Amino acid sequence: MTAPLKVGIAGLGTVGASVVRLLARQRDALEARCGRAINVVAVSARSKGKQRGVDTASYRWFDDPVALASDPAIDVFVELIGGEGDPAKRALEMALSRGKSVITANKALLARHGLDLAALAEKHRVALNFEAAVAGGIPIVKTLREGLVGNSLTRIYGILNGTCNYILTRMEQDGLSFEECLKDAQRLGYAEADPAFDIEGHDTAQKLAILASLAFGTRVDTEAVYVEGIASITPEDLEAAEELGYRIKLLGVAVATGQGIEQRVHPTMVPKGSAIAQVMGVTNAVTIDADAVNEITLMGPGAGGEATASAVVSDIGDVARGVRTAPFGTPASKLQAIGRAPMQRHEGGYYIRLLAVDRPGTAAVIAARLAEQNISLESIMQRHRGPRPQGGDSPKSAAPVPVILITYATTEDAVRRALAAVEEDGVIAQAPQVIRIEKN
Amino acid sequence: MTAPLKVGIAGLGTVGASVVRLLARQRDALEARCGRAINVVAVSARSKGKQRGVDTASYRWFDDPVALASDPAIDVFVELIGGEGDPAKRALEMALSRGKSVITANKALLARHGLDLAALAEKHRVALNFEAAVAGGIPIVKTLREGLVGNSLTRIYGILNGTCNYILTRMEQDGLSFEECLKDAQRLGYAEADPAFDIEGHDTAQKLAILASLAFGTRVDTEAVYVEGIASITPEDLEAAEELGYRIKLLGVAVATGQGIEQRVHPTMVPKGSAIAQVMGVTNAVTIDADAVNEITLMGPGAGGEATASAVVSDIGDVARGVRTAPFGTPASKLQAIGRAPMQRHEGGYYIRLLAVDRPGTAAVIAARLAEQNISLESIMQRHRGPRPQGGDSPKSAAPVPVILITYATTEDAVRRALAAVEEDGVIAQAPQVIRIEKN
Repeated sequence: MTAPLKVGIAGLGTVGASVVRLLARQRDALEARCGRAINVVAVSARSKGKQRGVDTASYRWFDDPVALASDPAIDVFVELIGGEGDPAKRALEMALSRGKSVITANKALLARHGLDLAALAEKHRVALNFEAAVAGGIPIVKTLREGLVGNSLTRIYGILNGTCNYILTRMEQDGLSFEECLKDAQRLGYAEADPAFDIEGHDTAQKLAILASLAFGTRVDTEAVYVEGIASITPEDLEAAEELGYRIKLLGVAVATGQGIEQRVHPTMVPKGSAIAQVMGVTNAVTIDADAVNEITLMGPGAGGEATASAVVSDIGDVARGVRTAPFGTPASKLQAIGRAPMQRHEGGYYIRLLAVDRPGTAAVIAARLAEQNISLESIMQRHRGPRPQGGDSPKSAAPVPVILITYATTEDAVRRALAAVEEDGVIAQAPQVIRIEKN
Repeated sequence: MTAPLKVGIAGLGTVGASVVRLLARQRDALEARCGRAINVVAVSARSKGKQRGVDTASYRWFDDPVALASDPAIDVFVELIGGEGDPAKRALEMALSRGKSVITANKALLARHGLDLAALAEKHRVALNFEAAVAGGIPIVKTLREGLVGNSLTRIYGILNGTCNYILTRMEQDGLSFEECLKDAQRLGYAEADPAFDIEGHDTAQKLAILASLAFGTRVDTEAVYVEGIASITPEDLEAAEELGYRIKLLGVAVATGQGIEQRVHPTMVPKGSAIAQVMGVTNAVTIDADAVNEITLMGPGAGGEATASAVVSDIGDVARGVRTAPFGTPASKLQAIGRAPMQRHEGGYYIRLLAVDRPGTAAVIAARLAEQNISLESIMQRHRGPRPQGGDSPKSAAPVPVILITYATTEDAVRRALAAVEEDGVIAQAPQVIRIEKN
């Protein structure tokens, strides 16, 4: 039996404390499965005295995570500090350059410095594992890096942010407004006090950029991700989606197109019968389209101390068994700069909700503007909010009418041009709502 | 860069030919990802002259797979012959004892001899990988063996047979009989000419036994699996399921209970909103309940040449990168004999469809028999197939009435006793239909 693996953990928040507990609870099973014991020997956190529900007295304590990372007594450094800058970054670099394998859950750091950190890990022939950085407990990184190694991927998309999915699920199921559901999510601890990073889609964008690198052998490039959040989604949209056979999810989507890799995060209509449409609440899911395996979907908890710790411990287990892959699957030197497919060229179906002025000719104007851009319609739904005014002789005083259009596949550019023209024509009473449709 | 990995493949059917093609198609990507080239150097199959859509002229040819397995020129032996006996078994043993890693898709062989083969692989410190043996292209073995290494599992269940799921999906969607759908499945190549192995649940049982070993650290024990097939399912059952908020799937379920591990394969009512209920057609899915990660579901193709080849190539990739785990996660010497939880003690809800004789007192008799066994009912549905006979004075001539009962959690034993008593009482016109309910 090989000597025990000596682990140093920096960051003892919810996830860090769960990792310590899980390693203790599964001690014997892990030793059997990995062929050696896994021993936490040192930890680092901001406040030594804080109650964490775990006894850290038997581990050496470091106030400075960088000092822990350079400690000759540890074999592997687990970074659970977070943040795209120091001390997380400096600690990681220190550990890697001292020839220690590193495990991190830090998506922000990887999204920004993934390429350099991967190169550093490869240079020192150590592992840089980050299963916990994307989709929490779902083994998506391992699946992409190892499980689908023989596949050429065409698309990867998923629900990568539990906060947004919780809000959209509540809005759909209870007919509530975005604001009400956000408040509930905050009350339940599913949303931060400052929810912008989640609800504006940036959290999803970071995770998507990491997945795209793994999926397509490209360099992580968060800047190349088109991002829209969920704040503009209304109960009317969810109601219309229901009627039309869709659900609305905040998806991160990366697709290989003729123009390059398209990376986008936006509220998306997905067919009600698709696997991804069944994903409710804070659950995450990722679907992969690939040449050999066709379609694979993984679902599970995207956050939470124990679920995230499950991913971290799996990464530690791999290091214990001596597994080493290039961090992004393909060696850093061979990762290609991403060829950005511009969002204007995105092709797909669109849901468009207009508030049309109720006067003769409006429908004709809208239809003409769409036709000019060669946009064909799959369906049109027009709803009068109440009874039409009796007598029918005062069309100008009528309230605007919601009109919902579902287009066949067209381009982002065509949709934007058509809607700009419609606005210009003055036949709609507010800015159009546009939601892209993703077919499975 | 390490020397190329030299691969010998025995069996050039649909999967074998797909593996050869996939290795060629992904040659450069695999070399980058695995750090070395993967070269097929020798093959074996029954008929050398057969057209397979792949050019095998550049590989050395073996008529005898055992001779290929012992060839000093190969590093890894890929067994795609199938069958629980020789030559597959002898070839595998030969390769392992010559210190070659083995990759196999042979569930029958693993279900029967998994423990011995694992021990042999461990003795010679080589890999025995079998991702393709269960759920085709879904990386479930890797997920159990590596991805959830820090978890203690409580339950694993899934749709593991595409033939059965295709038939049940067609029955549900088109209101057709089992026989009609089976014929369609055969015509489309989704079912064998002799479908018994699939539709009677034995294929699922073999796969389940392998999953249970990986999940619970027990020795593979197919004999311990309770098995029921799908031939008894009728359109009436699917219709009732729909009304009650369920779908019917053939599930393989392994659960850790107080009495041991319960392994069972049977048609199962699953809640319509569950992930597993969305799995249609030949797709497979596996759900895992575990202490840390809570619940994870994986879905994807359970069969097909390319999808299965994806799993085989992933296994080859792991060997190329030097990854070696105990074949069943836990070392063979530590795998426990399975503590069988007897089916009589199974606890859960039940769907019971009776054809009740339409005469006074029938309902009271049935209710009394259930009450005797402490079975509580969640719902009762009674349907008259047509209008009741007019006049009401000839109750004995009335047609029997279908009665559908949904029980709260009870035991298999109680249900069997109650229904035996009901039959004894002569108040039902045919044998009761019983379908277990699995909650997510």
